Amino acid sequence: MSEIKLVENAAGRLVPVEINGEPAVPFKGVGKYKPEGLKHATKIASCSDYPNNGNKQVSSLKEALIKAGLKNGMTLSTHHHFRNGDLIANQIFDIAKGLGVKDLRWFPSASFPCHEHLIRYLEDGTIHHIEGSMNGPLGKFASEGKMRGVGVLRSHGGRYQAVQDGEVKIDIAVIGAACADPFGNANGLYGESATGLLGFALADSQYADKVIVVTDNMVSFPCVPWQIQGNYVDYTVEIEKLGIPEKIISGTTRITRSPDRLLIAELTARFCDVTGIIHDGFSFQTGAGGTSLAVSEYFRQIMKEKGIKARFVRGGSNKYLVSILEEGLVDYILDGQTFDLEGVRSMAENPNHVWTSPFTSYNYHGKGIFAGMVDVVILGATEVDVNFNANVVTHSDGYLLHGIGGWQNCLFSKTVILPLPLFRDRIPIIVDEVTTLCGPAELIDVIVTERGIAINPRRTDLIEKVKGSDLPVKSIKELKEEAEKICGKPEKAKFNDQIIAVVKWVDGTVLDVVRKVKE
Amino acid sequence: MSEIKLVENAAGRLVPVEINGEPAVPFKGVGKYKPEGLKHATKIASCSDYPNNGNKQVSSLKEALIKAGLKNGMTLSTHHHFRNGDLIANQIFDIAKGLGVKDLRWFPSASFPCHEHLIRYLEDGTIHHIEGSMNGPLGKFASEGKMRGVGVLRSHGGRYQAVQDGEVKIDIAVIGAACADPFGNANGLYGESATGLLGFALADSQYADKVIVVTDNMVSFPCVPWQIQGNYVDYTVEIEKLGIPEKIISGTTRITRSPDRLLIAELTARFCDVTGIIHDGFSFQTGAGGTSLAVSEYFRQIMKEKGIKARFVRGGSNKYLVSILEEGLVDYILDGQTFDLEGVRSMAENPNHVWTSPFTSYNYHGKGIFAGMVDVVILGATEVDVNFNANVVTHSDGYLLHGIGGWQNCLFSKTVILPLPLFRDRIPIIVDEVTTLCGPAELIDVIVTERGIAINPRRTDLIEKVKGSDLPVKSIKELKEEAEKICGKPEKAKFNDQIIAVVKWVDGTVLDVVRKVKE
Repeated sequence: MSEIKLVENAAGRLVPVEINGEPAVPFKGVGKYKPEGLKHATKIASCSDYPNNGNKQVSSLKEALIKAGLKNGMTLSTHHHFRNGDLIANQIFDIAKGLGVKDLRWFPSASFPCHEHLIRYLEDGTIHHIEGSMNGPLGKFASEGKMRGVGVLRSHGGRYQAVQDGEVKIDIAVIGAACADPFGNANGLYGESATGLLGFALADSQYADKVIVVTDNMVSFPCVPWQIQGNYVDYTVEIEKLGIPEKIISGTTRITRSPDRLLIAELTARFCDVTGIIHDGFSFQTGAGGTSLAVSEYFRQIMKEKGIKARFVRGGSNKYLVSILEEGLVDYILDGQTFDLEGVRSMAENPNHVWTSPFTSYNYHGKGIFAGMVDVVILGATEVDVNFNANVVTHSDGYLLHGIGGWQNCLFSKTVILPLPLFRDRIPIIVDEVTTLCGPAELIDVIVTERGIAINPRRTDLIEKVKGSDLPVKSIKELKEEAEKICGKPEKAKFNDQIIAVVKWVDGTVLDVVRKVKE
Repeated sequence: MSEIKLVENAAGRLVPVEINGEPAVPFKGVGKYKPEGLKHATKIASCSDYPNNGNKQVSSLKEALIKAGLKNGMTLSTHHHFRNGDLIANQIFDIAKGLGVKDLRWFPSASFPCHEHLIRYLEDGTIHHIEGSMNGPLGKFASEGKMRGVGVLRSHGGRYQAVQDGEVKIDIAVIGAACADPFGNANGLYGESATGLLGFALADSQYADKVIVVTDNMVSFPCVPWQIQGNYVDYTVEIEKLGIPEKIISGTTRITRSPDRLLIAELTARFCDVTGIIHDGFSFQTGAGGTSLAVSEYFRQIMKEKGIKARFVRGGSNKYLVSILEEGLVDYILDGQTFDLEGVRSMAENPNHVWTSPFTSYNYHGKGIFAGMVDVVILGATEVDVNFNANVVTHSDGYLLHGIGGWQNCLFSKTVILPLPLFRDRIPIIVDEVTTLCGPAELIDVIVTERGIAINPRRTDLIEKVKGSDLPVKSIKELKEEAEKICGKPEKAKFNDQIIAVVKWVDGTVLDVVRKVKE
């Protein structure tokens, strides 16, 4: 990559104009890039090429991959609903290796530590590179400059956008589903490997050349509901086991017990109360982290005290959100991802627990997104800078260890709050400049820490509303200085020149790069 | 059209190679035409062009049409879920007339007698021609050679195929929905103008350049379920009244009381019993006509007697099917169209009453269709010929008075039965050659009349199974002769050369033409 021309984008970051041999557009500012051209058009199929009785089942994943025409240089996609319990992706590349196929691009919606197995295939040339978040070991591998191609990090919405717009052409999509029929209708609701929904595989089903549905729970037609429509599916496969249930469902989805984190959550909720964000018919989205869950709990208390309810909450759902729904404190959960079995149960039972997709919620190249209608979203970050730019993918030591998830997409909510500890392991969170830019400052409104709340100066409306309250409002620089008084000024991460990954913005433009860590 | 070259297609019919100035492919035989090329690609949109708060509402249908860029020569689409109670289509063209717009192509999923109002616009040049079924007055108008362009008749699945494949590019789709939110999420389930579902508008929402959702029941976001996804929608409009409820829901969906028709229905059901078509886990589709409903009732009795149940029935749903579902005699209704309020209620309440679309059920240019999985389908016809070809669009006097609906698509079911009276108004139904070919003989298996059952000689399996039964099996020629003994040989319809409409096959090829009636 070192010969590739770099240009300064609208965020002041040097980014390449070519990635893995394909042209790339530098970030032009939020809402500034106007896409031209047409959505990706797939080949017209004909029912005459599919069995009239609807049975598309083949005997094994290997047979399906061979029938789908697996060959060198193809792009294979998978989804991450099984999270760290996924048993499919490793199998796919074991098969590819067995067939001697090389130079594959793996296009997961996210990868997890369970995919460390694939490092051998990155090393031996079976996989050329990964496009998708690389959580943990794969990120470390990339950060050490060992991956041949450049990783491309996209948000959930950005992944849908990239597929829809033809930026990434998927040759073969493999969709693991807890429940499916031989025609290919599939859902994540019923069975041993239940994940709730399959939204992350939607774009893949619609736009991939060949689509394979794999299940360990094949039911007779019709599999209802069909979160994935069989009319997009080429082959179906039944296997023994899709995933490891206890690793699919995050067992750690619990409210924080840390007094500092609880304080941050309480301050966040009080901020939303004081500013009138919490009002009858409002909407919110919180993540599945311990602090976020605590925020939801405070929201619940406030709604009950006030005798009001929310119109909708956006999930990641979990038992806390489900109980809020079942208590009648919200009309709908609009869910993109279930984080525990209560979420799965509720989605299967309750028509007001609605499954959504990156298309409905996040695709910036559609005619609107749900994310923009959310009154307040509670998000995390690894770093925030004094201008309110934020980072979610690298640690301050420079290692790429996290994906973007829906984080960038959620920045379009009406108010974006990052409840953050002022420091982690004695490393301050607020810095002069973020290591990696993932979210532009203009979209980030409030930082809540255990030692005070900083409001983005652009949000004069919020600044006005907290006047006279007892909330500990400070400037972001004051917060930074407080942290540095305690921990000292953190060292900046050291990098080589080599670009090991790029961070895309929601519109497909290049927001920043991640470089090889200097050892 | 008279100068356009005609060629003989695989069904032996002379068809044009050009229709309304666009090239057309003659029918090549069932499953023989292999489409090439790509699906229609729509322009890439950007959220930056839509309000971030999700509110796309404008003040009137006129404003929406102007914003959508209504101009001469455009294609405007509507759907027919409101049937003969539709109040939208006429308004659209009143507005177009008021704006002085000319030469529009109207692309409804079907038109009804309530659209007779539009004849003035066909006459004054506001509308150039109609592509879609023309039931009643509009069909008569076309049959008299008065429409400027050539009508194009497509099945429900063929309409989806034509839009998906880019054969018909919709400039503006107007989707009337009983319930919608300002973002454009919409369903047909709740409100004064409830129609049950909106499947006929699905292709329009996905592929039209501009999409307008019109409702008389605007709810706050989210409108759940979203049968139409707001992410495809450009503008939303609230109006006083979408449709006339008593005309939306067909009041005449009642079981026949005619002894002859009841006999036909009973023979049909007995045939299905004797041949083993009715078995535990089987599936069926019947229409909403009086005879079809009677067949459903006999099916119910047989299932109860045998202590078996069906896996699914395909609707058009109605109170009879709903009661079969609620009695537990079937696992699922897979519904394409609700014919009465019981159907609407059940679809809203019962997760096993599932809404489908022409995409899932009928689109021949997808990776399979539900229709092929149905064990037996019961259909009507205006005429059948001695080779088992059938006609559903013209009467034997040559007038084009009906649409194709899902009829052609249903021919892909495992067994196709046409229960028909041997004659109507003393005109025999079985003829030497059908006036208009809509369904090729190889897909039509059985004709059941009050005077006997004819089995297509291709279905040797069925012929074998009825041997030894007391079913009155005859040859189709014997049935024809019986009818002619009673009624005399019918006169053939007389036509001019002028082609006033074409009948497309499910793959977009031209199966037959309809000519101007000689007066």
